[in-house]
Amino acid sequence: MKNNLFESKLKVANIGMESFADSLAENSVETVRVDFTPPICGDSSQWSSVYKKISSINKANKIASDRILQAQPFLIGMGKAGDLVPGMKKNLILHAGPPVSWDKMCGPMRGGVMAALMYEGMAKNPQEAEKLAASGKIKFEPCHDHSCVGPMAGIISYSMPVFIVKNKKFGNRAYATMNEGLGKVLRYGAYSPDVIERLKWMENVLYPVLKRAISYLGEIDLKSMTAQALHMGDEVHNRNRGGTSLLYRTLAPAVIKTSSQEEAASALEFINKNDHFYLNLSMAMSKASLDPAAGIKNSSLVYIMARNGTEFGIKVSSLGNKWFTGPAPVPDALFFAGYGKKDANPDIGDSAITETNGLGGFAIAAAPAIVQFVGGSAKDSVKYTEKMYSITCAQNNIYRIPALDFKGTPTGIDLIKAAKTGIMPFIDTGVAHKEPGIGQVGAGVVAAPKEPFIAAFEAFVKSI
Amino acid sequence: MKNNLFESKLKVANIGMESFADSLAENSVETVRVDFTPPICGDSSQWSSVYKKISSINKANKIASDRILQAQPFLIGMGKAGDLVPGMKKNLILHAGPPVSWDKMCGPMRGGVMAALMYEGMAKNPQEAEKLAASGKIKFEPCHDHSCVGPMAGIISYSMPVFIVKNKKFGNRAYATMNEGLGKVLRYGAYSPDVIERLKWMENVLYPVLKRAISYLGEIDLKSMTAQALHMGDEVHNRNRGGTSLLYRTLAPAVIKTSSQEEAASALEFINKNDHFYLNLSMAMSKASLDPAAGIKNSSLVYIMARNGTEFGIKVSSLGNKWFTGPAPVPDALFFAGYGKKDANPDIGDSAITETNGLGGFAIAAAPAIVQFVGGSAKDSVKYTEKMYSITCAQNNIYRIPALDFKGTPTGIDLIKAAKTGIMPFIDTGVAHKEPGIGQVGAGVVAAPKEPFIAAFEAFVKSI
Repeated sequence: MKNNLFESKLKVANIGMESFADSLAENSVETVRVDFTPPICGDSSQWSSVYKKISSINKANKIASDRILQAQPFLIGMGKAGDLVPGMKKNLILHAGPPVSWDKMCGPMRGGVMAALMYEGMAKNPQEAEKLAASGKIKFEPCHDHSCVGPMAGIISYSMPVFIVKNKKFGNRAYATMNEGLGKVLRYGAYSPDVIERLKWMENVLYPVLKRAISYLGEIDLKSMTAQALHMGDEVHNRNRGGTSLLYRTLAPAVIKTSSQEEAASALEFINKNDHFYLNLSMAMSKASLDPAAGIKNSSLVYIMARNGTEFGIKVSSLGNKWFTGPAPVPDALFFAGYGKKDANPDIGDSAITETNGLGGFAIAAAPAIVQFVGGSAKDSVKYTEKMYSITCAQNNIYRIPALDFKGTPTGIDLIKAAKTGIMPFIDTGVAHKEPGIGQVGAGVVAAPKEPFIAAFEAFVKSI
Repeated sequence: MKNNLFESKLKVANIGMESFADSLAENSVETVRVDFTPPICGDSSQWSSVYKKISSINKANKIASDRILQAQPFLIGMGKAGDLVPGMKKNLILHAGPPVSWDKMCGPMRGGVMAALMYEGMAKNPQEAEKLAASGKIKFEPCHDHSCVGPMAGIISYSMPVFIVKNKKFGNRAYATMNEGLGKVLRYGAYSPDVIERLKWMENVLYPVLKRAISYLGEIDLKSMTAQALHMGDEVHNRNRGGTSLLYRTLAPAVIKTSSQEEAASALEFINKNDHFYLNLSMAMSKASLDPAAGIKNSSLVYIMARNGTEFGIKVSSLGNKWFTGPAPVPDALFFAGYGKKDANPDIGDSAITETNGLGGFAIAAAPAIVQFVGGSAKDSVKYTEKMYSITCAQNNIYRIPALDFKGTPTGIDLIKAAKTGIMPFIDTGVAHKEPGIGQVGAGVVAAPKEPFIAAFEAFVKSI
């Protein structure tokens, strides 16, 4: 605009490629955007059968998304996975994402399984653990199919303590382990003695301290806490400093009243050193909020997105318990010193349940820090969130974003809208090393792959 | 832009009124802005003498603002005002803002003085307190002239516990009391028995608990904590939830280790219920950071802004200890139910030291919630912060704003730039009832009045 003030202006009609229009717009060239993006799948007869049913699909999606908005997730207690998790057995290990067998498991998930077998005392060393895991004596099933969620490898074994989150509106429950902190930890596939030792300390000290404190408090309103965290720079997936702080403030006086001085101090010091402590609660809260949206006839709402490090899977409200999967992509990431994209495992973890709940990448306008560390700007973070409104059914009534004038977060992913626009859910995430035993190597952003949505679309069209 | 795509464009040269240009710009009409705003004071000979010296003024301001950027404010301990505050005496009461005598004091400051006299046991009831305050036996001096700062009425008396903040780079110290919470509190002019009782509990329980914890920790880095709070939705003046949370997280384990279970729990419960607890530290930290910028020949940097509820006062680096004052304005505010602008006291408190330090209203883009509650949008909060860059000398190197892509906050108010542009410092603030004994009635925003800047400009021109 500097030199052409009195010249006639360049005008461009842009068809299709949005990024080209963006770059013209940045240079102040006028563009007329014509909506032209082709659907990612479906032939004209399939889309015509969708459009014939669109009013009942939309009605069903309204019921499903209303259930998400009505969720009342509360932290109500803690216990051992073996005592609480439906279907839990001593020889069963739960993992993140859709089902996967040992031979197809990625490195960090194998590492997590090995850590769990040593933690359970079923193996003495990594060699024994690997042998046992491959023997067929150990069963592997998704967390999601047992009312659980786990970040990264998402490993939950029989003796592990879990938080109990209850959706008081619908009565359903979800479970998640306590967050171990950053660096070399089980969920990133590390299994060295210090990893197991920390897990034992968490079971023997941290867990009883927190269990007593939560029981003293009765319950903690996680919806309200998450809403506040969004006003404190969190999107409660990759940034949890606000949520962790609020949880800590709530717990501390109860911890003091119900534990010895030494145990109280060590438990609070552990949480204070780990700004991600809230993540597992944010995930369990999201799981508890979304599960009641399942099973609604004609609803194209996606109520689970999860990755096992090999595949990315989704479940759709009207399509029962079926996983629709495709290859998991490798995130764009900022890597820790000494690591690069060649070290990165494909996308892994149940933490995309936060995005499915309208948080995480969907609420990234609340946490521009996350976009910035992969080279984006605060404006980019707003754009990412704004884009998600075009593939969702509702705006959240409680989760609101300051930078968008407290607009509700985009909530309830609509398979049909995603398939039609080709806009894939935006996820921000940690990145694990692809080999077992190493741990986290970075953090980044990724779009969900199209394949699971295409597969679900095909099944959905047949179902209506 | 909708209907004139192929028509020739409207072009406007805008002179003077910025808001007119803004409204054209919002409607996508091209405008050429011509800088035309007249200075708020000074005749052509005065401005010519300023311009003759402008290079040495700028050099002096660089030295002054560099000192602010180099500040290393740490919380290093606590003690009683009588033992620590320079020049403190039993019959001396410190107050917010520039000097003011009892007969000119506003209602809430009078109420605060009366509360302090009862707290000190020098008066048995409000009547006795009022009589003693008016008797001439009690001296009143500004907090700022005793290395102190206090929010709202800013009252500090002999027995009150204070935080000690040390600027480790320059060795100077600043002091502030502990924050009492919201509602009916001394700093808003309330003096009922529950107000005094809470102050006594703070002296007898909270103070020793925190003193021991801080002593156990050695020191707390307030610059780093404030920088993090800005990434958590705080501007550390009217929103302090992030800062309070981080302080709480840091203190809690030390509190547990150094106090009884009962005292530890009650101290942490008190802080947890008061999201403004960090405010007084944010103020003391700002005071400690700014004081070394005083006393630099030819510098037009404003290193103090403070209000006593009657007058608004500033001090300028090269103009010694002199206060330049003018009438305090009444803020635009959101009032609590049952109150309105007619109840509002004019602007009061030393808390504008946060703005002087590039925080508070200057960093309001970090805390859009504050602008929203007086009817503004997130974009307005960005505009307010952006405007402050035109009257400041530097961008902070540590305090950064996520919404501005982590740009440093506008730091070091330049009297000359403010006088020339007419842009007055933007302050966000609590609002006290104008009568003593009532307390807070709202919160809002206000621009500094021009008079103190005009008076300082006249003196500055004579001094160069």
